[in-house]
Amino acid sequence: MVQRPRGTRDFTPAAMKRRLALEHLLEDVAQRHGFSRVQTPVFESLELFTAKSGPGVIGQLYAFQDKGERDLTLRPELTAPVMRMVAEEMRMDTKPLRLSYYGQCYRYEEFKTGRYREFFQYGVELIGASGPLAEAEVIALAVNMLHATELEGWEIRIGHVGVLKDALTGLGLSADVDPSTGEPPVASAMRLLDKGDEAGLNALFTQQGLDPANTEPLRALASLEGGMETLGPARELLSSMEGVSLEALDELETTLQALAALAPAPPALAVDLTVARGLDYYTGTVFEVKVEELGGEGQVLGGGSYKLLHLFGLPDLDPCCGFGLGFDRVQLALEAQAAAAGRQDAVPGEADGRPFIAVAPNKTEAMPLLPLVAALRAQGARVELLLSSKNYGRIIKWTEGIGASHLLVVTAEDIENGSGRLINFSSGDRSDVALNAEAVLQSL
Amino acid sequence: MVQRPRGTRDFTPAAMKRRLALEHLLEDVAQRHGFSRVQTPVFESLELFTAKSGPGVIGQLYAFQDKGERDLTLRPELTAPVMRMVAEEMRMDTKPLRLSYYGQCYRYEEFKTGRYREFFQYGVELIGASGPLAEAEVIALAVNMLHATELEGWEIRIGHVGVLKDALTGLGLSADVDPSTGEPPVASAMRLLDKGDEAGLNALFTQQGLDPANTEPLRALASLEGGMETLGPARELLSSMEGVSLEALDELETTLQALAALAPAPPALAVDLTVARGLDYYTGTVFEVKVEELGGEGQVLGGGSYKLLHLFGLPDLDPCCGFGLGFDRVQLALEAQAAAAGRQDAVPGEADGRPFIAVAPNKTEAMPLLPLVAALRAQGARVELLLSSKNYGRIIKWTEGIGASHLLVVTAEDIENGSGRLINFSSGDRSDVALNAEAVLQSL
Repeated sequence: MVQRPRGTRDFTPAAMKRRLALEHLLEDVAQRHGFSRVQTPVFESLELFTAKSGPGVIGQLYAFQDKGERDLTLRPELTAPVMRMVAEEMRMDTKPLRLSYYGQCYRYEEFKTGRYREFFQYGVELIGASGPLAEAEVIALAVNMLHATELEGWEIRIGHVGVLKDALTGLGLSADVDPSTGEPPVASAMRLLDKGDEAGLNALFTQQGLDPANTEPLRALASLEGGMETLGPARELLSSMEGVSLEALDELETTLQALAALAPAPPALAVDLTVARGLDYYTGTVFEVKVEELGGEGQVLGGGSYKLLHLFGLPDLDPCCGFGLGFDRVQLALEAQAAAAGRQDAVPGEADGRPFIAVAPNKTEAMPLLPLVAALRAQGARVELLLSSKNYGRIIKWTEGIGASHLLVVTAEDIENGSGRLINFSSGDRSDVALNAEAVLQSL
Repeated sequence: MVQRPRGTRDFTPAAMKRRLALEHLLEDVAQRHGFSRVQTPVFESLELFTAKSGPGVIGQLYAFQDKGERDLTLRPELTAPVMRMVAEEMRMDTKPLRLSYYGQCYRYEEFKTGRYREFFQYGVELIGASGPLAEAEVIALAVNMLHATELEGWEIRIGHVGVLKDALTGLGLSADVDPSTGEPPVASAMRLLDKGDEAGLNALFTQQGLDPANTEPLRALASLEGGMETLGPARELLSSMEGVSLEALDELETTLQALAALAPAPPALAVDLTVARGLDYYTGTVFEVKVEELGGEGQVLGGGSYKLLHLFGLPDLDPCCGFGLGFDRVQLALEAQAAAAGRQDAVPGEADGRPFIAVAPNKTEAMPLLPLVAALRAQGARVELLLSSKNYGRIIKWTEGIGASHLLVVTAEDIENGSGRLINFSSGDRSDVALNAEAVLQSL
């Protein structure tokens, strides 16, 4: 028997109902924030992703050649395709652009819970504006989306790649590669700070002809932990180091103030002053959201300010700011939390409130019931008609099996009398009801 | 500059708004009819499609090998994947299943308007029930969907593959391959009828030892054209031929009667008694919808009853019935009709009625306006905040550029007074408004 390809999933009606509810919910919040959905193809030219992430990325891609021997690949992420689209089609549109997207992405790797070869990402990009207000708008959207999902126990960690970099360059460390070590002294210092290697840091400063006394406030800065309250001590430490700019810290503080005005407080907010996100294209504020209970797969959202448009021949006058939300992981977390709380619905809006009526002719023809079925549907009800004759016991089993909220069961005699029997499957109530749509809907 | 792959499309915010509106509208109608969305992966094992359509299909596929040298392909259609999913995951679910799906499909071919290498299909399958009532439910869903889109000038053509086949086998022609011609006499007769080759048909009958007099009512049957009114003459012609079963015609008549009760009349309905859809897996009623103005690309929907489950190791006790709707073509037709009528909106529900407010601080800080922005969004409005200072003229241009319905412009003095100026961009009305969400929303 032909099977589903490894690492992919099928989504049953019950799963899709939740996924569509989550998609609509995220879309609604995005709309309120002025973000509009765009869509790009599932495959792209291979070079789109090697331009962004380097040739090393190919090993994780579903790359293939088309019949014209063009190198294509299933997309591993959605930021580069959206940037490509902006460069090709939206150069003349009023900036800044507020774009949202949702779709499948692909990576070739061993799969486990929460990591699939075909996975789904929802994300946004604010293109053509920069600075704390733009960043706060994007982070507020992330926070409002997560609030709307009613996810619990998440933490947002916000940093600014410039704080530590400004401090290190302000102290005199170079951002250019040192041929003797193969990396810039700034990067070496970040690594040593991250490891807590005091002696190594002192040696680096001495070797660079700098005063090792400055490593103490640096190490104090790197060890700061907490929320908004860490900004005060950080400001003191940065001010104590001569030549160090406060610009990045000021930006971060303004971003956090604007965020507090634009979105309700998240369950937990951590300020991370020594963040040094691996990817070179981040330029300012960076942020990520984790859900503790998902463990190693707990990051459900990540983003920041970045410069990528130059890769597509566009001027990078302003950085962009955006985030990607791991749709599958958020869904998993919501389902785990609903299960733990004994709730049946995992996503707000999953139960759409639409009545679901099973209509069953009992040992009689369905034909006389069809106008009623059509009228109930025209008024918005979900109606499944029994398509083959069954005895009463199997009609009940069928109604339970399809998950209808109500059963309207009608015999030949009922049709002559113009009435049927309506059974409410949650309350067990039974009542006689006239065979017209208004009467049935009023009796639900 | 990296470009979009050939034959694929990007969808801008304006295009996506329409596409999402159409998707939601189709989904709403499907829900009312008891159909639930499922989703399968974008790629499948290659053999899934060669099993259904034969090895000849490979030339039109985006086929590739993964790193484990498994033969995969981007899916060219969605019926086989849904059947595969049912076989793998839904064997035990209450039958019949009413499933709907929507997604990208791929075919490798030269592209032109209405035919893309990446295209989108919406479809449904009713699995585990057969007969006229089941077929009428599926066709009624198709008709109700097209009515809901407000598409104009479409025609539905409904036939039954059994009518002509029953007549030919009833007259004594064999459905088994004749070694001297390489095809079954039934198929030869269908071909000759289709060509209107009277002499050839007579010769075939004589060669098979049958009375050539019977070819006259057959040719009369094949030339019948029209709607429901063709069923009467067809019944007379079939009855005039000895040994010919009326079963398929009876089924078709019942299907059409049930359809008339389940859905409003389509703009045009044609009955096609001599349909012989190429694909072997069709077993009963078949139907298709055309939109005249799309020309050669005018088929927007096609479906029927078929047997495919045996390909996946499942018993084919009942045929399935389903259809695929060409999402891109319906969209194209709606856009063409809207343009011809001078209407701005092409899809019902495209204008969601959500107020869209541009909020612009005029030569002042945005920070004091952020709580108002958050409050307006919390009440469902779409709000874009101006992120960088502009003069008044450029604020107006920006508001027009993003397509906002209203502009709230606020100076430093306004903030002190607690009021701002609201401009309605469709009426041109201007009014002063207090800077709280309720006051702004009431003044729209």
